Amino acid sequence: MKLFDGGRAPNPRRVRIFLAEKGLSVPLTPVDMGAMEHRNEAVTSRNPLRRLPVLELDDGTVLTETVAICRYFEELHPEPALFGTGALGKALVEMWQRRMEFNLFLPVAQAFRHIHPAMKEWEVPQIPEWGEANKPKAVEFLHILDKELASREFIAGDSYTIADITGLVAVDFMKPARIQMPEDCTHVRRWHQAVSSRPSAAA
Amino acid sequence: MKLFDGGRAPNPRRVRIFLAEKGLSVPLTPVDMGAMEHRNEAVTSRNPLRRLPVLELDDGTVLTETVAICRYFEELHPEPALFGTGALGKALVEMWQRRMEFNLFLPVAQAFRHIHPAMKEWEVPQIPEWGEANKPKAVEFLHILDKELASREFIAGDSYTIADITGLVAVDFMKPARIQMPEDCTHVRRWHQAVSSRPSAAA
Repeated sequence: MKLFDGGRAPNPRRVRIFLAEKGLSVPLTPVDMGAMEHRNEAVTSRNPLRRLPVLELDDGTVLTETVAICRYFEELHPEPALFGTGALGKALVEMWQRRMEFNLFLPVAQAFRHIHPAMKEWEVPQIPEWGEANKPKAVEFLHILDKELASREFIAGDSYTIADITGLVAVDFMKPARIQMPEDCTHVRRWHQAVSSRPSAAA
Repeated sequence: MKLFDGGRAPNPRRVRIFLAEKGLSVPLTPVDMGAMEHRNEAVTSRNPLRRLPVLELDDGTVLTETVAICRYFEELHPEPALFGTGALGKALVEMWQRRMEFNLFLPVAQAFRHIHPAMKEWEVPQIPEWGEANKPKAVEFLHILDKELASREFIAGDSYTIADITGLVAVDFMKPARIQMPEDCTHVRRWHQAVSSRPSAAA
Protein backbone atom coordinates (compact mmCIF):
# COMPACT_ATOMS: atom_id res chain seq x y z
CA MET A 1 0.00 0.00 0.00
CA LYS A 2 1.10 3.59 -0.51
CA LEU A 3 -0.24 6.95 0.57
CA PHE A 4 -0.01 9.88 -1.82
CA ASP A 5 0.72 12.64 0.65
CA GLY A 6 0.37 16.39 0.29
CA GLY A 7 2.84 17.71 2.83
CA ARG A 8 1.64 20.71 4.84
CA ALA A 9 -1.93 20.75 3.52
CA PRO A 10 -4.56 20.14 6.22
CA ASN A 11 -6.16 16.92 4.94
CA PRO A 12 -2.93 14.97 4.37
CA ARG A 13 -1.88 16.09 7.85
CA ARG A 14 -5.09 14.71 9.37
CA VAL A 15 -4.30 11.24 8.00
CA ARG A 16 -0.66 11.38 9.16
CA ILE A 17 -1.72 12.36 12.70
CA PHE A 18 -4.30 9.56 12.69
CA LEU A 19 -1.67 6.98 11.66
CA ALA A 20 0.74 8.30 14.31
CA GLU A 21 -1.92 7.92 17.02
CA LYS A 22 -2.51 4.35 15.84
CA GLY A 23 1.23 3.64 15.79
CA LEU A 24 1.01 2.70 12.11
CA SER A 25 3.50 3.43 9.38
CA VAL A 26 2.48 3.57 5.71
CA PRO A 27 4.92 4.30 2.85
CA LEU A 28 4.37 7.88 1.67
CA THR A 29 4.58 9.08 -1.93
CA PRO A 30 5.17 12.84 -1.62
CA VAL A 31 3.19 15.12 -3.92
CA ASP A 32 4.23 18.77 -4.12
CA MET A 33 0.89 20.59 -3.95
CA GLY A 34 2.64 23.98 -4.09
CA ALA A 35 3.83 22.98 -7.58
CA MET A 36 0.27 21.76 -8.39
CA GLU A 37 1.49 18.16 -8.71
CA HIS A 38 -1.89 16.93 -7.44
CA ARG A 39 -3.22 17.85 -10.87
CA ASN A 40 -0.71 15.53 -12.58
CA GLU A 41 -1.54 12.13 -14.06
CA ALA A 42 -0.33 10.17 -11.00
CA VAL A 43 -3.06 11.71 -8.84
CA THR A 44 -5.84 12.44 -11.34
CA SER A 45 -5.80 8.89 -12.73
CA ARG A 46 -6.45 7.68 -9.18
CA ASN A 47 -8.74 10.49 -8.01
CA PRO A 48 -10.68 12.41 -10.68
CA LEU A 49 -11.44 15.02 -8.00
CA ARG A 50 -7.70 15.81 -7.96
CA ARG A 51 -7.44 15.96 -4.20
CA LEU A 52 -5.12 14.48 -1.61
CA PRO A 53 -4.56 12.29 0.28
CA VAL A 54 -5.06 9.16 -1.86
CA LEU A 55 -4.43 5.67 -0.52
CA GLU A 56 -3.64 2.90 -2.98
CA LEU A 57 -3.88 -0.67 -1.74
CA ASP A 58 -1.63 -3.46 -3.01
CA ASP A 59 -4.35 -4.77 -5.34
CA GLY A 60 -4.71 -1.31 -6.92
CA THR A 61 -7.92 -0.35 -5.08
CA VAL A 62 -7.96 3.39 -4.47
CA LEU A 63 -9.40 5.07 -1.39
CA THR A 64 -9.79 8.83 -1.19
CA GLU A 65 -11.36 11.23 1.34
CA THR A 66 -9.44 11.74 4.57
CA VAL A 67 -12.08 10.34 6.92
CA ALA A 68 -12.70 7.28 4.70
CA ILE A 69 -8.97 6.49 4.72
CA CYS A 70 -8.91 6.91 8.51
CA ARG A 71 -11.95 4.65 8.91
CA TYR A 72 -10.25 1.94 6.84
CA PHE A 73 -7.33 1.89 9.29
CA GLU A 74 -9.71 2.04 12.27
CA GLU A 75 -11.49 -1.08 11.03
CA LEU A 76 -8.20 -2.94 10.47
CA HIS A 77 -6.61 -1.72 13.72
CA PRO A 78 -9.38 -0.95 16.22
CA GLU A 79 -7.07 0.07 19.09
CA PRO A 80 -6.83 2.80 20.24
CA ALA A 81 -10.39 3.54 19.12
CA LEU A 82 -10.35 6.93 17.42
CA PHE A 83 -13.92 6.70 16.09
CA GLY A 84 -15.48 5.80 19.47
CA THR A 85 -16.86 2.54 20.86
CA GLY A 86 -20.42 1.23 21.16
CA ALA A 87 -23.42 2.56 19.23
CA LEU A 88 -23.78 5.79 21.19
CA GLY A 89 -20.04 6.34 21.55
CA LYS A 90 -19.50 5.99 17.80
CA ALA A 91 -22.43 8.28 17.06
CA LEU A 92 -21.15 10.98 19.43
CA VAL A 93 -17.68 10.90 17.85
CA GLU A 94 -19.29 11.15 14.42
CA MET A 95 -21.39 14.08 15.63
CA TRP A 96 -18.39 15.99 16.96
CA GLN A 97 -16.18 15.08 14.03
CA ARG A 98 -18.83 16.54 11.71
CA ARG A 99 -19.42 19.59 13.88
CA MET A 100 -15.68 20.30 13.78
CA GLU A 101 -15.62 19.87 10.02
CA PHE A 102 -18.66 21.89 9.06
CA ASN A 103 -18.37 24.65 11.64
CA LEU A 104 -14.62 25.11 11.96
CA PHE A 105 -12.49 23.26 9.42
CA LEU A 106 -14.66 24.25 6.45
CA PRO A 107 -15.12 27.96 7.35
CA VAL A 108 -11.38 28.30 8.03
CA ALA A 109 -10.58 26.63 4.69
CA GLN A 110 -13.06 28.90 2.88
CA ALA A 111 -11.52 32.01 4.46
CA PHE A 112 -8.05 30.85 3.38
CA ARG A 113 -8.98 29.77 -0.14
CA HIS A 114 -11.06 32.84 -0.98
CA ILE A 115 -8.71 35.50 0.45
CA HIS A 116 -5.10 34.27 0.32
CA PRO A 117 -3.29 35.37 -2.88
CA ALA A 118 -1.54 31.97 -3.12
CA MET A 119 -4.96 30.33 -3.64
CA LYS A 120 -5.84 32.28 -6.79
CA GLU A 121 -5.27 29.26 -9.07
CA TRP A 122 -6.90 26.85 -6.61
CA GLU A 123 -10.20 28.57 -6.00
CA VAL A 124 -11.76 29.98 -9.16
CA PRO A 125 -13.38 32.43 -8.79
CA GLN A 126 -11.95 33.71 -5.53
CA ILE A 127 -14.69 35.65 -3.76
CA PRO A 128 -13.09 37.63 -0.91
CA GLU A 129 -16.51 38.66 0.46
CA TRP A 130 -17.34 34.96 0.98
CA GLY A 131 -13.95 34.38 2.57
CA GLU A 132 -14.56 37.23 5.04
CA ALA A 133 -18.10 35.97 5.78
CA ASN A 134 -16.60 32.71 7.04
CA LYS A 135 -14.35 34.25 9.68
CA PRO A 136 -17.17 35.14 12.13
CA LYS A 137 -18.74 31.69 11.55
CA ALA A 138 -15.53 30.05 12.79
CA VAL A 139 -15.26 32.42 15.77
CA GLU A 140 -18.91 31.87 16.75
CA PHE A 141 -18.37 28.12 16.75
CA LEU A 142 -15.19 28.43 18.86
CA HIS A 143 -17.30 30.07 21.57
CA ILE A 144 -19.82 27.20 21.46
CA LEU A 145 -16.92 24.72 21.63
CA ASP A 146 -15.38 26.59 24.55
CA LYS A 147 -18.50 25.99 26.68
CA GLU A 148 -18.31 22.27 25.86
CA LEU A 149 -14.62 21.96 26.68
CA ALA A 150 -15.22 23.56 30.09
CA SER A 151 -16.50 20.20 31.31
CA ARG A 152 -14.40 17.59 29.50
CA GLU A 153 -10.87 16.90 28.35
CA PHE A 154 -11.37 16.14 24.68
CA ILE A 155 -13.83 17.22 22.03
CA ALA A 156 -16.03 14.13 21.96
CA GLY A 157 -15.59 13.07 25.60
CA ASP A 158 -12.83 11.72 27.86
CA SER A 159 -10.77 10.15 25.06
CA TYR A 160 -8.78 11.57 22.19
CA THR A 161 -10.59 10.88 18.88
CA ILE A 162 -10.63 11.87 15.23
CA ALA A 163 -12.71 14.91 16.27
CA ASP A 164 -9.62 16.21 18.10
CA ILE A 165 -7.49 15.64 15.00
CA THR A 166 -9.90 17.64 12.84
CA GLY A 167 -10.04 20.33 15.53
CA LEU A 168 -6.26 20.56 15.91
CA VAL A 169 -5.65 20.84 12.17
CA ALA A 170 -8.46 23.39 11.80
CA VAL A 171 -7.14 25.59 14.63
CA ASP A 172 -3.58 25.47 13.23
CA PHE A 173 -5.02 26.37 9.81
CA MET A 174 -6.49 29.57 11.35
CA LYS A 175 -3.03 31.15 11.25
CA PRO A 176 -2.60 31.28 7.44
CA ALA A 177 -6.34 32.03 7.20
CA ARG A 178 -5.75 35.05 9.50
CA ILE A 179 -8.41 34.17 12.05
CA GLN A 180 -7.44 34.89 15.65
CA MET A 181 -8.29 32.57 18.51
CA PRO A 182 -10.57 34.65 20.77
CA GLU A 183 -8.86 35.62 24.04
CA ASP A 184 -11.80 34.38 26.13
CA CYS A 185 -11.79 30.85 24.67
CA THR A 186 -9.65 29.62 27.56
CA HIS A 187 -10.89 26.02 27.43
CA VAL A 188 -10.23 25.74 23.69
CA ARG A 189 -6.75 27.16 24.31
CA ARG A 190 -6.07 24.60 27.05
CA TRP A 191 -7.30 21.77 24.79
CA HIS A 192 -5.26 23.03 21.82
CA GLN A 193 -2.10 23.15 23.91
CA ALA A 194 -2.73 19.59 25.12
CA VAL A 195 -3.36 18.05 21.68
CA SER A 196 -0.47 20.04 20.17
CA SER A 197 1.95 18.56 22.70
CA ARG A 198 1.18 14.96 21.72
CA PRO A 199 3.94 13.44 19.54
CA SER A 200 1.37 12.83 16.75
CA ALA A 201 0.94 16.59 16.25
CA ALA A 202 4.35 16.70 14.54
CA ALA A 203 3.34 14.05 11.99
CA MET B 1 -36.72 8.50 21.94
CA LYS B 2 -37.95 11.30 19.73
CA LEU B 3 -36.75 12.87 16.52
CA PHE B 4 -37.13 16.62 16.05
CA ASP B 5 -37.94 16.71 12.37
CA GLY B 6 -37.73 19.56 9.90
CA GLY B 7 -40.24 18.53 7.22
CA ARG B 8 -39.10 19.16 3.66
CA ALA B 9 -35.57 20.33 4.47
CA PRO B 10 -32.87 18.06 3.00
CA ASN B 11 -31.16 16.82 6.18
CA PRO B 12 -34.31 15.76 8.04
CA ARG B 13 -35.35 13.96 4.86
CA ARG B 14 -32.07 12.05 4.75
CA VAL B 15 -32.73 10.62 8.21
CA ARG B 16 -36.36 9.71 7.38
CA ILE B 17 -35.27 7.88 4.21
CA PHE B 18 -32.58 6.06 6.21
CA LEU B 19 -35.12 4.94 8.82
CA ALA B 20 -37.55 3.82 6.10
CA GLU B 21 -34.81 1.71 4.45
CA LYS B 22 -34.09 0.15 7.83
CA GLY B 23 -37.80 -0.47 8.45
CA LEU B 24 -37.61 1.55 11.66
CA SER B 25 -40.19 3.92 13.06
CA VAL B 26 -39.24 6.73 15.47
CA PRO B 27 -41.75 9.19 16.96
CA LEU B 28 -41.37 12.53 15.19
CA THR B 29 -41.70 15.97 16.78
CA PRO B 30 -42.42 18.29 13.87
CA VAL B 31 -40.59 21.61 13.77
CA ASP B 32 -41.77 24.23 11.27
CA MET B 33 -38.51 25.49 9.79
CA GLY B 34 -40.41 27.85 7.47
CA ALA B 35 -41.61 29.65 10.62
CA MET B 36 -38.03 29.55 11.99
CA GLU B 37 -39.10 27.23 14.83
CA HIS B 38 -35.66 25.62 14.78
CA ARG B 39 -34.41 28.78 16.46
CA ASN B 40 -36.85 28.32 19.36
CA GLU B 41 -35.90 27.11 22.82
CA ALA B 42 -36.98 23.49 22.15
CA VAL B 43 -34.29 23.09 19.51
CA THR B 44 -31.58 25.53 20.65
CA SER B 45 -31.50 24.08 24.18
CA ARG B 46 -30.74 20.70 22.60
CA ASN B 47 -28.54 21.90 19.72
CA PRO B 48 -26.73 25.23 20.13
CA LEU B 49 -26.03 25.13 16.39
CA ARG B 50 -29.81 25.48 15.84
CA ARG B 51 -30.01 22.83 13.15
CA LEU B 52 -32.22 19.85 12.48
CA PRO B 53 -32.66 16.95 12.77
CA VAL B 54 -32.08 16.37 16.50
CA LEU B 55 -32.53 12.96 18.12
CA GLU B 56 -33.26 12.81 21.84
CA LEU B 57 -32.84 9.46 23.57
CA ASP B 58 -34.99 8.36 26.50
CA ASP B 59 -32.27 9.27 29.00
CA GLY B 60 -32.07 12.81 27.58
CA THR B 61 -28.88 12.26 25.56
CA VAL B 62 -29.00 14.40 22.44
CA LEU B 63 -27.56 13.40 19.06
CA THR B 64 -27.32 15.85 16.20
CA GLU B 65 -25.82 15.73 12.70
CA THR B 66 -27.68 13.67 10.13
CA VAL B 67 -24.95 11.12 9.48
CA ALA B 68 -24.26 10.64 13.21
CA ILE B 69 -27.94 9.92 13.82
CA CYS B 70 -27.95 7.47 10.92
CA ARG B 71 -24.81 5.76 12.21
CA TYR B 72 -26.44 5.31 15.63
CA PHE B 73 -29.31 3.39 14.04
CA GLU B 74 -26.87 1.43 11.84
CA GLU B 75 -24.99 0.25 14.92
CA LEU B 76 -28.21 -0.75 16.71
CA HIS B 77 -29.79 -2.34 13.61
CA PRO B 78 -27.00 -3.50 11.29
CA GLU B 79 -29.31 -4.97 8.61
CA PRO B 80 -29.64 -3.94 5.85
CA ALA B 81 -26.13 -2.48 6.00
CA LEU B 82 -26.35 1.10 4.73
CA PHE B 83 -22.79 2.05 5.75
CA GLY B 84 -21.15 -0.96 4.04
CA THR B 85 -19.61 -4.15 5.44
CA GLY B 86 -15.99 -5.11 6.09
CA ALA B 87 -13.09 -2.68 6.41
CA LEU B 88 -12.82 -1.87 2.71
CA GLY B 89 -16.59 -1.89 2.13
CA LYS B 90 -17.17 0.56 4.99
CA ALA B 91 -14.33 2.79 3.79
CA LEU B 92 -15.69 2.87 0.22
CA VAL B 93 -19.18 3.82 1.43
CA GLU B 94 -17.65 6.55 3.59
CA MET B 95 -15.64 7.77 0.60
CA TRP B 96 -18.70 8.00 -1.64
CA GLN B 97 -20.93 9.40 1.07
CA ARG B 98 -18.40 12.20 1.56
CA ARG B 99 -17.88 12.76 -2.15
CA MET B 100 -21.65 13.16 -2.53
CA GLU B 101 -21.77 15.58 0.39
CA PHE B 102 -18.81 17.79 -0.48
CA ASN B 103 -19.17 17.81 -4.25
CA LEU B 104 -22.94 17.74 -4.74
CA PHE B 105 -25.04 18.22 -1.60
CA LEU B 106 -22.97 21.15 -0.32
CA PRO B 107 -22.64 23.07 -3.63
CA VAL B 108 -26.38 22.64 -4.28
CA ALA B 109 -27.17 23.88 -0.76
CA GLN B 110 -24.83 26.86 -1.18
CA ALA B 111 -26.46 27.79 -4.51
CA PHE B 112 -29.90 27.64 -2.85
CA ARG B 113 -28.98 29.48 0.33
CA HIS B 114 -27.05 32.29 -1.36
CA ILE B 115 -29.47 32.99 -4.20
CA HIS B 116 -33.03 32.10 -3.16
CA PRO B 117 -34.95 35.09 -1.72
CA ALA B 118 -36.56 32.84 0.94
CA MET B 119 -33.09 32.23 2.42
CA LYS B 120 -32.35 35.90 3.17
CA GLU B 121 -32.83 35.45 6.93
CA TRP B 122 -31.05 32.07 6.95
CA GLU B 123 -27.82 32.96 5.23
CA VAL B 124 -26.38 36.26 6.37
CA PRO B 125 -24.84 37.75 4.32
CA GLN B 126 -26.28 36.21 1.16
CA ILE B 127 -23.58 36.39 -1.53
CA PRO B 128 -25.22 35.62 -4.90
CA GLU B 129 -21.83 35.48 -6.64
CA TRP B 130 -20.84 32.60 -4.34
CA GLY B 131 -24.18 30.89 -4.97
CA GLU B 132 -23.63 31.09 -8.73
CA ALA B 133 -20.02 29.84 -8.40
CA ASN B 134 -21.37 26.63 -6.88
CA LYS B 135 -23.62 25.67 -9.79
CA PRO B 136 -20.79 24.63 -12.16
CA LYS B 137 -19.10 22.75 -9.27
CA ALA B 138 -22.22 20.58 -8.90
CA VAL B 139 -22.53 20.04 -12.66
CA GLU B 140 -18.85 19.11 -13.01
CA PHE B 141 -19.23 16.50 -10.28
CA LEU B 142 -22.37 15.05 -11.92
CA HIS B 143 -20.28 14.31 -15.00
CA ILE B 144 -17.66 12.52 -12.88
CA LEU B 145 -20.44 10.58 -11.16
CA ASP B 146 -21.99 9.67 -14.50
CA LYS B 147 -18.82 7.85 -15.59
CA GLU B 148 -18.87 5.89 -12.33
CA LEU B 149 -22.53 4.92 -12.60
CA ALA B 150 -21.92 3.57 -16.12
CA SER B 151 -20.50 0.43 -14.55
CA ARG B 152 -22.51 -0.13 -11.38
CA GLU B 153 -26.03 0.06 -10.02
CA PHE B 154 -25.58 2.22 -6.95
CA ILE B 155 -23.22 4.99 -5.95
CA ALA B 156 -20.89 3.00 -3.69
CA GLY B 157 -21.23 -0.38 -5.43
CA ASP B 158 -23.86 -3.07 -5.96
CA SER B 159 -25.92 -2.22 -2.87
CA TYR B 160 -28.02 0.76 -1.89
CA THR B 161 -26.24 2.75 0.87
CA ILE B 162 -26.31 6.09 2.67
CA ALA B 163 -24.34 7.51 -0.29
CA ASP B 164 -27.44 6.95 -2.43
CA ILE B 165 -29.61 8.72 0.14
CA THR B 166 -27.32 11.76 0.15
CA GLY B 167 -27.25 11.68 -3.65
CA LEU B 168 -31.04 11.40 -4.02
CA VAL B 169 -31.71 14.27 -1.64
CA ALA B 170 -29.02 16.41 -3.27
CA VAL B 171 -30.37 15.82 -6.79
CA ASP B 172 -33.95 16.60 -5.68
CA PHE B 173 -32.62 19.76 -4.00
CA MET B 174 -31.24 20.91 -7.39
CA LYS B 175 -34.77 21.93 -8.41
CA PRO B 176 -35.26 24.76 -5.86
CA ALA B 177 -31.57 25.62 -6.32
CA ARG B 178 -32.25 26.00 -10.07
CA ILE B 179 -29.52 23.65 -11.26
CA GLN B 180 -30.44 21.51 -14.24
CA MET B 181 -29.45 17.87 -14.54
CA PRO B 182 -27.21 17.77 -17.65
CA GLU B 183 -28.89 15.97 -20.57
CA ASP B 184 -25.87 13.75 -21.17
CA CYS B 185 -25.76 12.37 -17.60
CA THR B 186 -27.79 9.33 -18.66
CA HIS B 187 -26.41 7.01 -15.99
CA VAL B 188 -27.12 9.49 -13.21
CA ARG B 189 -30.65 9.88 -14.60
CA ARG B 190 -31.18 6.08 -14.62
CA TRP B 191 -29.87 5.84 -11.04
CA HIS B 192 -32.01 8.77 -9.87
CA GLN B 193 -35.14 7.20 -11.33
CA ALA B 194 -34.34 3.91 -9.60
CA VAL B 195 -33.72 5.36 -6.13
CA SER B 196 -36.72 7.71 -6.47
CA SER B 197 -39.02 4.75 -7.10
CA ARG B 198 -38.12 3.01 -3.84
CA PRO B 199 -40.85 3.43 -1.18
CA SER B 200 -38.31 5.14 1.13
CA ALA B 201 -38.04 8.11 -1.24
CA ALA B 202 -41.48 9.29 -0.09
CA ALA B 203 -40.41 9.36 3.58
